[in-house]
Amino acid sequence: MDRRSFLRKGALGGAAAAAGSALAAPAIAQETPTVTWRMTSSFPKSLDTIYGAAETMANYVKGMTDGKFNIQVFAAGEIVPGLQAMDSVSNGTVEACHTASYYYWGKDPTFAFATAVPFGLNARMQNAWFYYGGGNDLMNEFYANYGITAFPCGNTGAQMGGWFRKEINTVEDLKGVKMRIGGFGGKVMEKLGVVPQQIAGGDIYPSLEKGTIDATEWVGPYDDEKLGFYKVAPYYYYPGWWEGGACLHAMFNKNAYDQLPEAYKVALQAATQAANSDMMASYDAKNPTALKTLLAQGTQLRPFSQDILDACFKAAQEVYAEIGASNAGFKKVHDHIFAFRNDAYGWWQLSEFNFDYFMMRQQAAGNLKL
Amino acid sequence: MDRRSFLRKGALGGAAAAAGSALAAPAIAQETPTVTWRMTSSFPKSLDTIYGAAETMANYVKGMTDGKFNIQVFAAGEIVPGLQAMDSVSNGTVEACHTASYYYWGKDPTFAFATAVPFGLNARMQNAWFYYGGGNDLMNEFYANYGITAFPCGNTGAQMGGWFRKEINTVEDLKGVKMRIGGFGGKVMEKLGVVPQQIAGGDIYPSLEKGTIDATEWVGPYDDEKLGFYKVAPYYYYPGWWEGGACLHAMFNKNAYDQLPEAYKVALQAATQAANSDMMASYDAKNPTALKTLLAQGTQLRPFSQDILDACFKAAQEVYAEIGASNAGFKKVHDHIFAFRNDAYGWWQLSEFNFDYFMMRQQAAGNLKL
Repeated sequence: MDRRSFLRKGALGGAAAAAGSALAAPAIAQETPTVTWRMTSSFPKSLDTIYGAAETMANYVKGMTDGKFNIQVFAAGEIVPGLQAMDSVSNGTVEACHTASYYYWGKDPTFAFATAVPFGLNARMQNAWFYYGGGNDLMNEFYANYGITAFPCGNTGAQMGGWFRKEINTVEDLKGVKMRIGGFGGKVMEKLGVVPQQIAGGDIYPSLEKGTIDATEWVGPYDDEKLGFYKVAPYYYYPGWWEGGACLHAMFNKNAYDQLPEAYKVALQAATQAANSDMMASYDAKNPTALKTLLAQGTQLRPFSQDILDACFKAAQEVYAEIGASNAGFKKVHDHIFAFRNDAYGWWQLSEFNFDYFMMRQQAAGNLKL
Repeated sequence: MDRRSFLRKGALGGAAAAAGSALAAPAIAQETPTVTWRMTSSFPKSLDTIYGAAETMANYVKGMTDGKFNIQVFAAGEIVPGLQAMDSVSNGTVEACHTASYYYWGKDPTFAFATAVPFGLNARMQNAWFYYGGGNDLMNEFYANYGITAFPCGNTGAQMGGWFRKEINTVEDLKGVKMRIGGFGGKVMEKLGVVPQQIAGGDIYPSLEKGTIDATEWVGPYDDEKLGFYKVAPYYYYPGWWEGGACLHAMFNKNAYDQLPEAYKVALQAATQAANSDMMASYDAKNPTALKTLLAQGTQLRPFSQDILDACFKAAQEVYAEIGASNAGFKKVHDHIFAFRNDAYGWWQLSEFNFDYFMMRQQAAGNLKL
């Protein structure tokens, strides 16, 4: 497994070399060029935490280059529809986008691994795979087929399992449930009799209220609260096993990226990595408060039963096997990321998990006081 | 609670404004100054992951400024002894250091909150507190008393509980145990009869071999394996309850930092935040493999019993109360960070914890295969 950081080679190595020679011969003063890029987001401004990661990234780049590298961020639909963000970068309409790679799994399910797949990695593992497990190189090999270079740029953490109008106590209860759920998770749910629905954010609440759908997943407490689902579907299930740590990406048109001065490539690498961490921190600060508000408003928390999770896990393995049988590229990334996951959980089960477990035990006992 | 990102104000706001005016009047071309800083690390190069975070940060800054802002990193002892790093920045001997804030808890225990305290925050929560919970502002108010401005720059995640020559089955078994353990954790251990020892890294193995000490804590599998403790103290305990997510800091001499051009301040903010995430990813990729090696070499994993953890938790609360009674600054940060922690665990217990729990259950059942 390649454990080198993506920072220690490629663009950064080049930059260090360039910097070295510049210092050796300071007389040759090259003017850094002014570059203006457009970045289209797949998200509306109302999803301020996810949308905000693109702005955080762009502000960092602008700030550290004294305004010379200026990335203008546009919300979904302003210049490109949200779900066509990747295509618009691929064909050069814009230089950059901020999106979830798994939105494009219909073109090739391999796209999904870069964001989140059912029973995949948690947020920290996803970062470890990208930055030190060879994941970033592997995905960029794949993205090169679409003329794209991409870096992780935000994470939601483990998402919730969604809002249900009725309790789901058994695997049988899932049959016939019309659920708004995107992409890969829906494909697994389908095996258990769920009828997946694709519905845009703004249309979910009325569909749920009218009973056109029975359930919906969205993100987590902070984003879910704004859409008010608790009023019409009070049962809030966890965990969202299809998104253990959903990663967003900054995608760049490969030609445009390759032509950047080395310093600007480093700026993008540092700014995306900083924004990646920043978005996770933002959700981790906002979700606890939003959860308390939701509970005060009558939200009923429900864990998916072990039987249900076991059945979903089994169905997911079937989906992976089916796709892998006819898609060698998918199988390659699948085996790579899951081997990493399996090792990662061997370590996670010691201090990391048991520290949290003890703290939650103290909390349940009422001992976490000031 | 202040939920604004530290990125959205202060230096970055200034940079954005400066960038705006530069764009409005491009004729006034100001040459970015060449700045060379020295950063002394508290760590030897052999702790390559921790030491490496300072180099990652410095490489980013150098790369994104085309070599104009050059931070030279020195290992512990090269120019300043490891545990005097903060002092050397405070008095202006060097402009910067990479260190653990809790090394200085002898001056004031408030320093410890920025790194890790017994039964404190996990790594993600620590980031959330710093970047969106007001923690970074609060600590910098405190650091200003020492002429320092600091940003998080690396995290180890939850550390292990250390290596013991004999099994520790009961609270009684801790009595008289001579254990190499630093700072705050040792102060709590002392209440349970442990005799804390301060021993430098290179001297721990011979002390453990000769029986001068009975136990030692260090970091986690990747770093611990190199020192070979498993050969003389085979029982490897978890969790390391005194370090649920130990955060390293890049500390800057406040005068030197305040005089930087705005672009370089933004460069430091982005580079430290990127390196903070990068170091965590590095450990998360390296520890699982090292753990497998340790187990193959005969390491015996042992969880601290619930009774022992409960007794340690109780002792920790006593220590907090004792210090807080006579140190108002300590009490202020204590109440702030623990209120944040208590909310954070209310959310963590849902999807985040249960996603991991289910995955580990599948692993125990032998179902995590390719």
